[in-house]
Amino acid sequence: MAGRPDAGTLRRYRRACDYLAAAMIHLKDNVLLTEPLRPEHLKPRPLGHWGTCPGLTLIYAGLDRLIAETGQRTLLVTGPGHGAPAIHANLWLEGTHAEYDAGLSRDGRGLAALVRRFSWPGGFPSHLSPEVPGVIHEGGELGYALATAFGAAFDDPGLLVACVVGDGEAETGPTAASWHSPKFTGSGDGRVLPILHLNGYKISSPTLYESMSATELERYFAGCGWTPLLVDVRGADNPDELLGTALSRAHAHDGGPPPMIVLRSEKGFGLPSAAPDGTPLAGTFHAHQVPLPGAAGDPEQLAALERWLRSYRPEELFDADGVPAPDLLDVPPEPGLRLGRVPQANGGLLREDLPLPDTGMFAIDVRGPGSTDASAPEVLGAWLAELVREAPENFRVVCPDELQSNKLGALLDATPRQFDRAVPGYTEHLGGRGRVLEVLSEHLCQGWLEGYLLTGRHGLFPCYEAFVSIVDSMVNQYAKFLKMSGEVPWRAPVASLNYLLSSDGWRQDHNGYSHQGPGFINQMLTKKASTTRVYLPPDANTLLHTMRRCLASTDLINVVVAGKQGGPQWLSHDDAAVHCRAGAAEWPWAGTGSGAPDVVLACAGTTPTVETLAAAALLRERAPGLKVRVVNVVDLLSLCPADRHPHGLSAEEFTDCFGKAVPVVFAFHGYPSAVHEVLHGRAGSGRFHVHGYLEEGTTTTPFDLLASNRMSRHDLAADAVRRARGWASEGGDIARALVAERDEVLEQSYRDGQDPEGITGWRWPG
Amino acid sequence: MAGRPDAGTLRRYRRACDYLAAAMIHLKDNVLLTEPLRPEHLKPRPLGHWGTCPGLTLIYAGLDRLIAETGQRTLLVTGPGHGAPAIHANLWLEGTHAEYDAGLSRDGRGLAALVRRFSWPGGFPSHLSPEVPGVIHEGGELGYALATAFGAAFDDPGLLVACVVGDGEAETGPTAASWHSPKFTGSGDGRVLPILHLNGYKISSPTLYESMSATELERYFAGCGWTPLLVDVRGADNPDELLGTALSRAHAHDGGPPPMIVLRSEKGFGLPSAAPDGTPLAGTFHAHQVPLPGAAGDPEQLAALERWLRSYRPEELFDADGVPAPDLLDVPPEPGLRLGRVPQANGGLLREDLPLPDTGMFAIDVRGPGSTDASAPEVLGAWLAELVREAPENFRVVCPDELQSNKLGALLDATPRQFDRAVPGYTEHLGGRGRVLEVLSEHLCQGWLEGYLLTGRHGLFPCYEAFVSIVDSMVNQYAKFLKMSGEVPWRAPVASLNYLLSSDGWRQDHNGYSHQGPGFINQMLTKKASTTRVYLPPDANTLLHTMRRCLASTDLINVVVAGKQGGPQWLSHDDAAVHCRAGAAEWPWAGTGSGAPDVVLACAGTTPTVETLAAAALLRERAPGLKVRVVNVVDLLSLCPADRHPHGLSAEEFTDCFGKAVPVVFAFHGYPSAVHEVLHGRAGSGRFHVHGYLEEGTTTTPFDLLASNRMSRHDLAADAVRRARGWASEGGDIARALVAERDEVLEQSYRDGQDPEGITGWRWPG
Repeated sequence: MAGRPDAGTLRRYRRACDYLAAAMIHLKDNVLLTEPLRPEHLKPRPLGHWGTCPGLTLIYAGLDRLIAETGQRTLLVTGPGHGAPAIHANLWLEGTHAEYDAGLSRDGRGLAALVRRFSWPGGFPSHLSPEVPGVIHEGGELGYALATAFGAAFDDPGLLVACVVGDGEAETGPTAASWHSPKFTGSGDGRVLPILHLNGYKISSPTLYESMSATELERYFAGCGWTPLLVDVRGADNPDELLGTALSRAHAHDGGPPPMIVLRSEKGFGLPSAAPDGTPLAGTFHAHQVPLPGAAGDPEQLAALERWLRSYRPEELFDADGVPAPDLLDVPPEPGLRLGRVPQANGGLLREDLPLPDTGMFAIDVRGPGSTDASAPEVLGAWLAELVREAPENFRVVCPDELQSNKLGALLDATPRQFDRAVPGYTEHLGGRGRVLEVLSEHLCQGWLEGYLLTGRHGLFPCYEAFVSIVDSMVNQYAKFLKMSGEVPWRAPVASLNYLLSSDGWRQDHNGYSHQGPGFINQMLTKKASTTRVYLPPDANTLLHTMRRCLASTDLINVVVAGKQGGPQWLSHDDAAVHCRAGAAEWPWAGTGSGAPDVVLACAGTTPTVETLAAAALLRERAPGLKVRVVNVVDLLSLCPADRHPHGLSAEEFTDCFGKAVPVVFAFHGYPSAVHEVLHGRAGSGRFHVHGYLEEGTTTTPFDLLASNRMSRHDLAADAVRRARGWASEGGDIARALVAERDEVLEQSYRDGQDPEGITGWRWPG
Repeated sequence: MAGRPDAGTLRRYRRACDYLAAAMIHLKDNVLLTEPLRPEHLKPRPLGHWGTCPGLTLIYAGLDRLIAETGQRTLLVTGPGHGAPAIHANLWLEGTHAEYDAGLSRDGRGLAALVRRFSWPGGFPSHLSPEVPGVIHEGGELGYALATAFGAAFDDPGLLVACVVGDGEAETGPTAASWHSPKFTGSGDGRVLPILHLNGYKISSPTLYESMSATELERYFAGCGWTPLLVDVRGADNPDELLGTALSRAHAHDGGPPPMIVLRSEKGFGLPSAAPDGTPLAGTFHAHQVPLPGAAGDPEQLAALERWLRSYRPEELFDADGVPAPDLLDVPPEPGLRLGRVPQANGGLLREDLPLPDTGMFAIDVRGPGSTDASAPEVLGAWLAELVREAPENFRVVCPDELQSNKLGALLDATPRQFDRAVPGYTEHLGGRGRVLEVLSEHLCQGWLEGYLLTGRHGLFPCYEAFVSIVDSMVNQYAKFLKMSGEVPWRAPVASLNYLLSSDGWRQDHNGYSHQGPGFINQMLTKKASTTRVYLPPDANTLLHTMRRCLASTDLINVVVAGKQGGPQWLSHDDAAVHCRAGAAEWPWAGTGSGAPDVVLACAGTTPTVETLAAAALLRERAPGLKVRVVNVVDLLSLCPADRHPHGLSAEEFTDCFGKAVPVVFAFHGYPSAVHEVLHGRAGSGRFHVHGYLEEGTTTTPFDLLASNRMSRHDLAADAVRRARGWASEGGDIARALVAERDEVLEQSYRDGQDPEGITGWRWPG
């Protein structure tokens, strides 16, 4: 590698990459066209998206030159992940592929393997994926490349994150919001260089950015806070020079709005202008996917394909053994700086443990169950503040403007919200540098955090429970990325993605129905057992232990649901540790004593736990003699059979909690279906009667919200005494009285506009 | 009502509204302050968001004047739905409230009821909601107001849709994408007038739009294709005039980029500058919610609240009986044009049935099961094209650039994609006016369609199955809106929201793991039984009947999953009608004859049906004598017990399908958990062994994708013969042989890069 490769070499390098990409899409044999192309050389199912490939290689080669010239450590985030053939071609030519897989050596054997393995069963997927070196973003589902790129840049001041955004992807909402991200970055962060690749078309239509004039584009991006650099390589003799100049200008940019590049190119350039049947190809949406899909069965298409492939003159680029011409190897930068090798793309290697403070110092002193009140997130906030005071440069909290609302305000006393723009008027807790990023976009929070975690750092995402569903599909994709990463031997574990959902629906009585929705738990249950965890700590000390565990874990998505309102505390710091380790356990002090119970009252979640204990207290009064066991579940997946989930209780542990045949009345935080789902496969799960959110809600009192979903203490107690073994006759009368009492409470709530005392501020009688 | 109200009257009108809004948040009695304010007059739980209220009333009053002057039919979409007190105040003063509810008469009695019922159990929710006249958008979850507004405007050329977007909401991705919507509207559509209400703060931080200079704002919105009109009323003597001038300019605007307004105001103006404890209030984020929440317990706050409320001088605005001063009634326009009364806000009243073509004309001629191949969406596309040729101006198809990919291309021969911008270069099926809207944003598709349906029209949303989860949270909110609407007597039914998911995961073998995800079905199952339906038609004729039913239905969310690839057709048009009516039924021709079966093979979904029939065929060969019944389920919710869902089969019908004790091997399109969930409550559901998507995937062959999820014909047949009654000993050997055969097929697939013939192109032997 010797200095700046000249224009001719770059052009030859791109010819080689474009050839390889086209070959990957169409060929399985005769990959260097050493003999005339015949149908049997073609893949039976040609797959791949050509349209974006030549543009991606133009950018990749341009970045290579920039890196070679400047030594700039650079990570590439490729939004059009379906342009994988181009990235593979570059990775092979730069020698990265061979380093990860000896079968992909930089010779004819490796070349043949690369071409065949693309989009082949057992080979490389058709899109970018964790199997591909240098990749932290798949780009299968569009919209998140730019937010991920910013996530990678935070707290890594020497890093340049180049991010290709396709003009299809640019139409998405999350991308549109992401253009505002520079308002949140500061001098302690790396730089993001977005390259909007405007090739004019998505699958079958022009893009909306294609319809914008140059003036509109400049205004739009300048309005977002960028210095837009427009580069148009359509029909240009010297595309490498045009882009190279812009890249150099961007790299040298100092002060003022940061640079971004709008790169206009023909779609799928290099392709013939039309297919044999006259379908226009180059520069149209017909270039989007496989340009000549019928070549195997149509001699004219076959001939056109051969002409197209030979137009790259592979014989000038590879020797007879398939080894690339020596000058091509001048293009990639030195090995340590190659885009496929940048350590941030395998962030687990860079991951350092967080200096997690001792939880004991922050624990609530709980002398007896229910003897103290506290807000669990408030207690957690103090612990997080201590963590942040250790000044780790590898931890961030992202949140849609809800930290204070979620009672984590203590954190803001330790570190401001980072917002690097002058704001007129009155502010609190705002600064140019801080561990907290608040923006009213769950998409940005999620994308930033994904990029941050995948480059080796740690984080937490506190979110309103109902609105975390905004990122359902992002979580789907992230779970897939984690699952696949776990199957790639060279990928090191990354820190887990941690959610804290503390503005939970049961106490969104004031914000109303739109704020009531616990469906994210169900969403998590569709994932692989290796990927997700769901915790429902019922008080402050269990929350401390749970969050410590989550922040120390790797490669997981942890969902922690813990109500933010002040309420009774149940377990001491030590007891909480034991309880969290167990996942689910009897609370003997809450039941009627040892021996076989007539009914089990089980609960999971802050509010259901309070209601269940209140129900147990009611039953002591109203049904003396009824033998009740109370069980609390903090780790939802402990209910799964052990062969379905690593956290599943053994059959013995499960029986210790729930008996074998006794009815269980289960008060659950979310939709009842989630409990049925985790219980699936446990023998006799038909005896579990689950109360939960029934999708009834509005602005009302907390007790009304519970009662309308049949989750109030009266409903639970009535159900328990009705179902209890041996209470068939007696139980009915007691249950009816309990329901009548519930309705009296409701009547009073409606009259007074609040729940009566004894409901609000209820205390465990001890 | 006499012409243009003067500035003084407008100001008095706003004083009245602001007073009422503040009263709603804080008071339950003494609502006109006829006596000194005492703690017992206060609501025990003061609720509401003051910060946005005075701005909303400024806008409402400005629109009132514009409407009065011009007679412009106007719908208001309020993004900051938590500013409900302002909207209620205006609805009461304009007399709309009294028309819908005699208890809210425009006098002291009605005023007292209004103030008390806001955020009171059994009263109005704290946010806008379907209970409120004039509302088609709740605004609880932020991000969708602007897309909804555009949806309301399509095909209603006389309508002006004014849309308030808060600067908090403006940070969201869906809103950021929505600013590009004018590129899709044309002369046949109404106009949308966005008003970005820039009051500077969200809950506890400045907004990112607040940090933008006037130049940046102008550039940003001009770049999006608007003519931005900046109005700054901070400290202005004449805010009504400043805004009024902009509204008039916007209304008179003709040609060029459409107008939008950026309205800068102090947050929560009218509030004292600080609370008694020194907390700054007006113009800061502390004005966001309840400004003086501690008034009941703090005499200084109580005094401050009284001073604030009296600063509006209610005695000058309402007479001793609570009747508004006559001049205030000059502000609202004539009754038919009032914002609370615009018929589009109760769109069901405007709904006209679609001219649905006869499905028989488009049906596939199926002489015998499996005798013909077809792509079901292709057949549907022809039927939809015929529907569109009837030129209904009340039907639209929204799609993220996937109509052709989803094999609905025939539709584009009948109507172009509407995209009202000049686009250079080559295009197909694009025009200034058409029934189809394609944009690569599921959020925009969903928001547009919601607005379109709620204003009385019809629509269809074809979407990739895996990516429809992008709108999970929007669907959550829409389901809530429908559920609540159903409880409001004056809301007329609207056309259902219909999804067609035809790019389903089983045939996304080429696009890979990111495109494989059937979780939307699970998402639907968390909803009320009154709200959602899930259909899995297995072939073209069942799809035709299903879609006809969906497009004729009201107030539902219909999810139709039907594979797009060509495949065997099973039912004639008539048989399909019977089958769809049943929801689930035995296919006698596919089983081994009458009598009690040893095992039931059940299936739901295009691909699972093919595999199940192939398994049945395999079993005839490999396990002669095994008695097999085949059942197909087209209506997933028919499996629910009848007391849980209106579509649930009766116990007898269920037994007719599935017997009482026979093992059932169920091949399901989605996650197995969805079937377990709908079966919950059916006696003995433990005998259902569900195969489905196990979250295994990559780019590979279709058969490999099936096998890796244990859903191939061999897996189904092996499971069936193992579990069949009376086949315990014999079944094991047969099953092992089947599994070995599966592995041979896989080996061949890996070698050839495609599935062998006999798998691809398999035919029912008849």
